[in-house]
Amino acid sequence: MSDSISNQAKAAVIVHALPYIQKYYGKYVVVKYGGNAMIDDHLKDCVMRDIVLLNLIGIKVVLVHGGGPDINATLKRMGIEPRFVNGLRYTDAETMEVVQMVLSGKTNKNLVTLVEQHGGRALGLCGIDGGMIRATKKTDKGDLGFVGDVTEVDTAPITDAIDQGYIPVIATVGCDSEGNVYNINADTAAAAIASALGAENLILMTDIRGLLRDKEDESTLIPSVRVSEVPGLIREGIISGGMIPKIECCVESVRQGVSRAFIIDGRIPHSILIEMMTDEGIGTMFL
Amino acid sequence: MSDSISNQAKAAVIVHALPYIQKYYGKYVVVKYGGNAMIDDHLKDCVMRDIVLLNLIGIKVVLVHGGGPDINATLKRMGIEPRFVNGLRYTDAETMEVVQMVLSGKTNKNLVTLVEQHGGRALGLCGIDGGMIRATKKTDKGDLGFVGDVTEVDTAPITDAIDQGYIPVIATVGCDSEGNVYNINADTAAAAIASALGAENLILMTDIRGLLRDKEDESTLIPSVRVSEVPGLIREGIISGGMIPKIECCVESVRQGVSRAFIIDGRIPHSILIEMMTDEGIGTMFL
Amino acid sequence: MSDSISNQAKAAVIVHALPYIQKYYGKYVVVKYGGNAMIDDHLKDCVMRDIVLLNLIGIKVVLVHGGGPDINATLKRMGIEPRFVNGLRYTDAETMEVVQMVLSGKTNKNLVTLVEQHGGRALGLCGIDGGMIRATKKTDKGDLGFVGDVTEVDTAPITDAIDQGYIPVIATVGCDSEGNVYNINADTAAAAIASALGAENLILMTDIRGLLRDKEDESTLIPSVRVSEVPGLIREGIISGGMIPKIECCVESVRQGVSRAFIIDGRIPHSILIEMMTDEGIGTMFL
Amino acid sequence: MSDSISNQAKAAVIVHALPYIQKYYGKYVVVKYGGNAMIDDHLKDCVMRDIVLLNLIGIKVVLVHGGGPDINATLKRMGIEPRFVNGLRYTDAETMEVVQMVLSGKTNKNLVTLVEQHGGRALGLCGIDGGMIRATKKTDKGDLGFVGDVTEVDTAPITDAIDQGYIPVIATVGCDSEGNVYNINADTAAAAIASALGAENLILMTDIRGLLRDKEDESTLIPSVRVSEVPGLIREGIISGGMIPKIECCVESVRQGVSRAFIIDGRIPHSILIEMMTDEGIGTMFL
Amino acid sequence: MSDSISNQAKAAVIVHALPYIQKYYGKYVVVKYGGNAMIDDHLKDCVMRDIVLLNLIGIKVVLVHGGGPDINATLKRMGIEPRFVNGLRYTDAETMEVVQMVLSGKTNKNLVTLVEQHGGRALGLCGIDGGMIRATKKTDKGDLGFVGDVTEVDTAPITDAIDQGYIPVIATVGCDSEGNVYNINADTAAAAIASALGAENLILMTDIRGLLRDKEDESTLIPSVRVSEVPGLIREGIISGGMIPKIECCVESVRQGVSRAFIIDGRIPHSILIEMMTDEGIGTMFL
Amino acid sequence: MSDSISNQAKAAVIVHALPYIQKYYGKYVVVKYGGNAMIDDHLKDCVMRDIVLLNLIGIKVVLVHGGGPDINATLKRMGIEPRFVNGLRYTDAETMEVVQMVLSGKTNKNLVTLVEQHGGRALGLCGIDGGMIRATKKTDKGDLGFVGDVTEVDTAPITDAIDQGYIPVIATVGCDSEGNVYNINADTAAAAIASALGAENLILMTDIRGLLRDKEDESTLIPSVRVSEVPGLIREGIISGGMIPKIECCVESVRQGVSRAFIIDGRIPHSILIEMMTDEGIGTMFL
Repeated sequence: MSDSISNQAKAAVIVHALPYIQKYYGKYVVVKYGGNAMIDDHLKDCVMRDIVLLNLIGIKVVLVHGGGPDINATLKRMGIEPRFVNGLRYTDAETMEVVQMVLSGKTNKNLVTLVEQHGGRALGLCGIDGGMIRATKKTDKGDLGFVGDVTEVDTAPITDAIDQGYIPVIATVGCDSEGNVYNINADTAAAAIASALGAENLILMTDIRGLLRDKEDESTLIPSVRVSEVPGLIREGIISGGMIPKIECCVESVRQGVSRAFIIDGRIPHSILIEMMTDEGIGTMFL
Repeated sequence: MSDSISNQAKAAVIVHALPYIQKYYGKYVVVKYGGNAMIDDHLKDCVMRDIVLLNLIGIKVVLVHGGGPDINATLKRMGIEPRFVNGLRYTDAETMEVVQMVLSGKTNKNLVTLVEQHGGRALGLCGIDGGMIRATKKTDKGDLGFVGDVTEVDTAPITDAIDQGYIPVIATVGCDSEGNVYNINADTAAAAIASALGAENLILMTDIRGLLRDKEDESTLIPSVRVSEVPGLIREGIISGGMIPKIECCVESVRQGVSRAFIIDGRIPHSILIEMMTDEGIGTMFL
Repeated sequence: MSDSISNQAKAAVIVHALPYIQKYYGKYVVVKYGGNAMIDDHLKDCVMRDIVLLNLIGIKVVLVHGGGPDINATLKRMGIEPRFVNGLRYTDAETMEVVQMVLSGKTNKNLVTLVEQHGGRALGLCGIDGGMIRATKKTDKGDLGFVGDVTEVDTAPITDAIDQGYIPVIATVGCDSEGNVYNINADTAAAAIASALGAENLILMTDIRGLLRDKEDESTLIPSVRVSEVPGLIREGIISGGMIPKIECCVESVRQGVSRAFIIDGRIPHSILIEMMTDEGIGTMFL
Repeated sequence: MSDSISNQAKAAVIVHALPYIQKYYGKYVVVKYGGNAMIDDHLKDCVMRDIVLLNLIGIKVVLVHGGGPDINATLKRMGIEPRFVNGLRYTDAETMEVVQMVLSGKTNKNLVTLVEQHGGRALGLCGIDGGMIRATKKTDKGDLGFVGDVTEVDTAPITDAIDQGYIPVIATVGCDSEGNVYNINADTAAAAIASALGAENLILMTDIRGLLRDKEDESTLIPSVRVSEVPGLIREGIISGGMIPKIECCVESVRQGVSRAFIIDGRIPHSILIEMMTDEGIGTMFL
Repeated sequence: MSDSISNQAKAAVIVHALPYIQKYYGKYVVVKYGGNAMIDDHLKDCVMRDIVLLNLIGIKVVLVHGGGPDINATLKRMGIEPRFVNGLRYTDAETMEVVQMVLSGKTNKNLVTLVEQHGGRALGLCGIDGGMIRATKKTDKGDLGFVGDVTEVDTAPITDAIDQGYIPVIATVGCDSEGNVYNINADTAAAAIASALGAENLILMTDIRGLLRDKEDESTLIPSVRVSEVPGLIREGIISGGMIPKIECCVESVRQGVSRAFIIDGRIPHSILIEMMTDEGIGTMFL
Repeated sequence: MSDSISNQAKAAVIVHALPYIQKYYGKYVVVKYGGNAMIDDHLKDCVMRDIVLLNLIGIKVVLVHGGGPDINATLKRMGIEPRFVNGLRYTDAETMEVVQMVLSGKTNKNLVTLVEQHGGRALGLCGIDGGMIRATKKTDKGDLGFVGDVTEVDTAPITDAIDQGYIPVIATVGCDSEGNVYNINADTAAAAIASALGAENLILMTDIRGLLRDKEDESTLIPSVRVSEVPGLIREGIISGGMIPKIECCVESVRQGVSRAFIIDGRIPHSILIEMMTDEGIGTMFL
């Protein structure tokens, strides 16, 4: 596509990115990778290029991911039936073993391979490594088995990796001091990591355009929201359903010191780069 | 057991370990973990204690592991039939995916959890991370699919982890520059890593007593073998069968600069510590 | 201009720069700034943006400059008549004083001011500072007074400045151990500095399109020349006149270890960025 | 003795030391060496092994010593009569010269030699070196001549030595800013050094079993005492005589931030190691 | 002159300097260079020797200078008429260009050359470099054009240069964030730099003996003045005329944390050294 | 004495020292302290001032000393009779104990005290500390008991001390790997240390004027001697008696890489400073 653009225009585009590069230089940016951008090959490729580029221009990128459809496919393949308690999925010990294995052995290492194919150097870690993500059994939604809440993030394994030039790719499995392993929601884990790092940005990749005033109409995108507006937007029903926990992650991370949290549309190629390096942005920013 | 030993005797034992601690201080020791020591809970516990202790007294331990029975169990559970070519197992793409997932997601992270429960700080990596183990398709035994030979080891991810106080735990999956992933024999990978690190020791844990002159009689254990004796021992039939590739790993690593390579009996509790910290040793040493 | 380009296309442009950023990361690039690009305000602005951007994405840029028309204007203003010997300009002591003053006090500091206005941090130095450019009286073209040849470059003041995050801006005045100050041709000085740094690129900004097979026809631009071809091109008359010394600087620097030397057209906005960050290049490369 | 212990049991003993090694790793431990352990050759040997071992497993050991019988023997040999004032020994200038000479030239350097024979690297210092122990004339017990109280400890010479891998061996002579040299009680000096270092342990080696409820019966050993209990124990007469100043050193150091202070029996071989590396301890701990 | 002094006496002189060297070791000393000491060749030579010597014995010297007669000579030579507003000189844009050029291109680099000829390593900077001296248009004396007040000093370019072994030589030109350049009074700039560095000494070189009780009688020199005495001395008329702004610089810098500020007589050879290394001092000290 | 010298002259003297300071800056200078300069209080004071001053102006001074009359006085006081073998003194075990004690406990620590009183920071070491001086029994002059030859110098304890700002003061006792302690001639030890450090100067303080052509006439002092001239001077009898071993130390150290070795007259106050900081020198230089 860019081939029809003159070299002159190309240079202009790059030069326009200058103030953004200056702004983010040396800052931590945590990207929660998920949704279609993890399935579609072209989108995957775009995300990887964006990540490697951010790393190269001096931004400290951390890639956090859940397991997407890999987990369900493996569970099904192994004949493990999903179990529900009060309509919520229950993670028993056997399922947890599969979750850990798929997240840290399949999805995680596949992402590492991809980053390296695009010229980056990546280190695939999970929350167990170096005791990075300390978790405790989640209890506020009833007994969900081995589903965990983050109690503490030790950023040393992340910052060590970055200081040595690696892009850390993190599978959101946590553990407690007795060696129990828990499944952690990836948005929540990304927010906790961003908070612990004092990151500049938390970017949650989703399959929607952003926060819309009218869900049927993309032209009603709300470009930025102050965290103090969120309760009102929930009351109005503009923030609802599956958006609520995602936006709570954004709000919480901003409250903990992250400068800006974003919900962006992973279905748009290079959405990370567009959000960070152009003047418009394409999702909803919380600050 | 040690409770019946007087404090005086305990102190004497610790003091006797002094020259061994001095000898190994600051040196790399690569332990290939496998066999019964990976299955039996008490033995596992002993190995973990040994590893954490070596790390704490200033030895740079690297733990390398294969997948043991985990891989076969998962393949079976997923209904993937083993395929053989000329009597050798063939690793097709689907199997390779499972191998990567189990090795780096299940076995590896479980070991990390164990090390941390014993008070160590571990980082679970595989050969893909940081491009650590570069591999190419193995061709000398016919087409075995995604089985690889090590072409190069980048020790940076290992030495970085050690320099920051972590015990690296390494799953033996490798990759090539196009992003293909290969299954690497764990003994071979451990030997290649030990060579690349210029390690003091390579320790292969097995389920046999060591090299026996008479396989039926453990009292015929050969305590030490110079690498130049190996061809003769093969001709005599003393080294035979499954021992041949293991001993070739030892020989090769010694030729590449490792000071001493050991085949030890993982069924004996604390065999690593006994081999390294007492005057007898309990396996066969190659030098 | 770039406003008519979609964000998508902008992102694509930036992503296409990725391999070039990777290639130049951490490398030294010496830019000899001169000609129209030093006079026209828009071009000046473009060069400054390019320089600051290169610095920010991890390239170690060094900006070397001569005095352009500033020197003549000042000489004229002060009523100092140019003096010629055998048709070559003679730099007497009084002229040399003016040259030093204008180069290091006017042109140099004005460039520092410009770089800083564009968000960079610059340090304005001349060859006298830290004894950086050691020179001796030039004698191969007859007695030209205080015109010097470079005898040695001490890169410490340059690399120190870069290591602390500054862009070094260098006026090409040199000195000898007795404190005599010499005027050094800026192309020659830039080449000597690039050689001493083992730079990846030497970029000479000129007011021509590059090396043309037919001087009247810009479509006959020769995009790349191996240094071994240069003598032939001189014999053919394709390299002639004022181009000869410029190209000799390129050839010499390549011989001394610089990977690539460029003659680019400073009249084209962002010519540095286009040459370094796009696949075409726009001038002539010597390698 | 330990030869009758199986290798298995030896390994178990070493493994049992693991939590203690972890606890002390990187911490300062100050050992006041004295009594029989300084005279008997076998005990000396045991202490040296303990010290070298602690150093090797990552504990920052500082060895502080008085002069034991060396001083008296030399004074006698030189025909210097001890002088008493109110029943307390008076240190005149001539005696002080001998004290300094014997402590820092004989006892100290002999200990350094011993440590090095056991494979450690030692640096023999006294309180004069680097102005380490600042002292003032002691006046609270009448005029005792050149007997000093510690006014300040500069830990730099100690921590510098440790950071470079040496075991500091310290003779307890102090000085004031006019160059007067004072004899400092070794227990007091060790306590002051431990306080200044924020040490984990202060260990005073004595010739008694510890604090006994009944002085005639070693089975009445009090294993641990909180510093708040000490005044009561003095009132009850359980702490009395020569024990009072020793225990005051322990109490004072704990009050200044030392985690634990010990009075141990130097007549028992490896008493330091038994106290620090086994679960029983063998002396009295103050905390 | 010193040739008639015996070696013995020479050694005594050097030894007497010892306590002064100890006192200044590692401290910042800012010397404002000006007046006759900048014109007379022998005096210049003496100052350079003093500066290089101070640097060599571990004192962090910063040399700050104005333009002396160079500026006027150049203005005159270029036919630029001085312009006055209310009896004060007005710096228009054209004059400012000349001021910048002469200060940073002529005076500054000539000083660098001199320092290097005396064996020092110097870096010639002005307040524009690295954004060192931030200034704003001076308004308290009416509109004087491009005359500036210092608003902030970024000491990084100065301390960086010193840490790498250079003597920073600083021309007192400042700039604002829009790229406007201002002429800054050199005494004021030196005082601001000394304050920002927390310097031990600020030394202003003048052409008078110091503060005299009777201006006609050098024997009435006041050797030291507490800053609280200054208002009284102004009221009495002892401080008057051109001395007032100089002394205000001294007072201000002392109030900002400089230990001692001096007005010394630059007409006396080695006045800096005499002031700093002998017991008398030769000017007036403010503290 | 220097009080009659004008401040002007004082400054001139200090400035004349500049090139010498530049020459020695950062270099090692080993001073063997001995003779009258160790006995006379004024001379002692002068040496201490010289040493502290050299250290302060950036020269890495090492002070090496023997025991002077202290050893004999103590031996006599203890009633130990000197024993001679073939006219040479025999050092039995008992004498060696006294030598070690006096050298490292009395002379050494007294020197440390003196240096510190003059404002320096000193660390008193002997050849045993850190295994610095490895020695073996001297056998070339018959059996002299515990008299040793230097076999190796480990400079780490010396350079470590200097890097941390201390002046190392070294007593010339050495040891072997079995813990035997030897008396080492102080000139020899100083030469070995200077060689191992690659020192700029070795300075041996003596009680004579230097090498005299006519021993009765100080005006026949030979200011400098090339090491190749030494054999001739011995043959001529100009170098004879006790001078031979001293000059052999000089010759040997120059051969091992020391730039200049000096024999200077310690009876002249500040002889070190005069030799190093003035243009005449006052002893004999070997080079």
